[in-house]
Amino acid sequence: MNSPENKFSVFAGLDLGATDLKYGLVNAAGKILVSKKAPVKKGRQILAAQLQDAAAELFITASGKNWSVARIGVGSPGAVNFETGEVMGNSPNITGWVGVNLRKISDGLGVPVYADNDANCVALAEHLFGAARNCRSALCVTVGTGIGGGLILNGEVYRGSSFSAGEIGHITVVFEGEKCSCGNRGCLEKYVSVTALLKQAKENLVKNKKSGWKRFLENGKLTVGAIAAAAKMRDKTALELLSKQAAYLGAGLASAVNLINPEKLVLGGGFLDAYPEFLEMVKKEIRKRAFAAAVKSLKVVKAELGNEAGLVGAAFLGWEY
Amino acid sequence: MNSPENKFSVFAGLDLGATDLKYGLVNAAGKILVSKKAPVKKGRQILAAQLQDAAAELFITASGKNWSVARIGVGSPGAVNFETGEVMGNSPNITGWVGVNLRKISDGLGVPVYADNDANCVALAEHLFGAARNCRSALCVTVGTGIGGGLILNGEVYRGSSFSAGEIGHITVVFEGEKCSCGNRGCLEKYVSVTALLKQAKENLVKNKKSGWKRFLENGKLTVGAIAAAAKMRDKTALELLSKQAAYLGAGLASAVNLINPEKLVLGGGFLDAYPEFLEMVKKEIRKRAFAAAVKSLKVVKAELGNEAGLVGAAFLGWEY
Repeated sequence: MNSPENKFSVFAGLDLGATDLKYGLVNAAGKILVSKKAPVKKGRQILAAQLQDAAAELFITASGKNWSVARIGVGSPGAVNFETGEVMGNSPNITGWVGVNLRKISDGLGVPVYADNDANCVALAEHLFGAARNCRSALCVTVGTGIGGGLILNGEVYRGSSFSAGEIGHITVVFEGEKCSCGNRGCLEKYVSVTALLKQAKENLVKNKKSGWKRFLENGKLTVGAIAAAAKMRDKTALELLSKQAAYLGAGLASAVNLINPEKLVLGGGFLDAYPEFLEMVKKEIRKRAFAAAVKSLKVVKAELGNEAGLVGAAFLGWEY
Repeated sequence: MNSPENKFSVFAGLDLGATDLKYGLVNAAGKILVSKKAPVKKGRQILAAQLQDAAAELFITASGKNWSVARIGVGSPGAVNFETGEVMGNSPNITGWVGVNLRKISDGLGVPVYADNDANCVALAEHLFGAARNCRSALCVTVGTGIGGGLILNGEVYRGSSFSAGEIGHITVVFEGEKCSCGNRGCLEKYVSVTALLKQAKENLVKNKKSGWKRFLENGKLTVGAIAAAAKMRDKTALELLSKQAAYLGAGLASAVNLINPEKLVLGGGFLDAYPEFLEMVKKEIRKRAFAAAVKSLKVVKAELGNEAGLVGAAFLGWEY
């Protein structure tokens, strides 16, 4: 019963974010069995060691439960070479990360290791177990601090010719628009994101001191939750801010729809959790802008796996091999 | 020698454009053996009959040369259901075309008939015989009256979930921009196209009567050729107009690069033929805007098959079956 062959197989996933490293063990049905979290450490070497320690910790946890870890996956911001595990593109949030080989963090643990971009992990998880199940093509978009995007085409994660595909946050929606940290101008995420919403809300509060908003602040702080609460009370300013975000997001997504014509758009992130009506607002904007033939077959749906999609997706990297 | 089995096999292609119907016979190496052209007739029934007659004419021509037509392909504006041959999406240039079944135009000729969107035909031709040979992913863009786009992904034409993919001309580059005939606002082709260039040039000529442009007009008419000739003479206004077009096109293409991360961008159409330097101008804009990791592996090249790409691609629809 307890011979290694009969051990219960689990998959280890590590999801490196801007602030937290989430890591855990997932079963073959995509269920998270163990979930841990730690603040991301600064510095290339230190962070690589943190990932290594987290992987080792998961092995020890599994061993204690008499489980066998069959595979490790790491999701990271930036472009990641899926063939080699090397970080190829910079991420604004983690400096000096280019060149790190994420497959090496688990050298010596004796199981296959895979690494991919974090938004690709989210797309994979939604494709296997969430809102993009049983569909051939989907764009999975997470609106958070910025906008993450992962593409499913022909039933697989589509990584592009140099592992950089899916970056819907960095398509230009305003030709001569705001400068983005990526070097481009007028990127979608400069207009739609938690960052952008809070910035716009602050500007609005400064301009419009009479607004009854103060009652919606959370401990005096402006948050997405506070804006959503105000919108639920039909506060005009909050509704206008959210409408504007929906209009920009709709324009960006309509561009993607006209270019890729996916079966599904899967939307997730802070906005939708705080203000579910946002999904309908975005749908309306897409219908206004995208080709009728493409919209007719399009389903715009809420992501199902929430904050842990990245971890689950990471654990399932390489599942098809 | 002359038994049907030994007859030389050719492929019939019909390329329906906004003004002309091009049709011809192509050999297995993609070489056009017979090429014909006729002005497009107006009216759904009349146009369908014109296509039917053109296909029959190609059969008679082939027969006269003792060739055997192995396949017929039709390229048409608008979204075309590649599985059934039905026109699914409207095209601004051909009214009342939705619902026509393009596979039926050759009923009774006894060979397989395929139909697809015209820009997909261009992409297929460039992929098989032109600038996108031996590459796994490419976006083929033709800048003419509007902007046509066709996608090659994983070494095949990517048609999308409802045969509407590739419409790079209708991605939003100016959020609250000009109204487009597709219903959207700020579409790329409203800013970059022969139509847009001539419109901008006229506005400029009206404003700036002192310009020395008149000497570049072709029989007193403002054309892309005239603007290109002026640019070659380093005329400041002409260069500015072309720079502006390159900047918008670069922004639109950078969005596609960030989203799809293709191996190649293949650019064709009137602009590049008239002013080859335009390609370098566009490349520069893409480099300025798109992710470094995606640009590094990207080749931006001129289309190789010119005006007849659509015909060749149509003749090769269904080649993989």
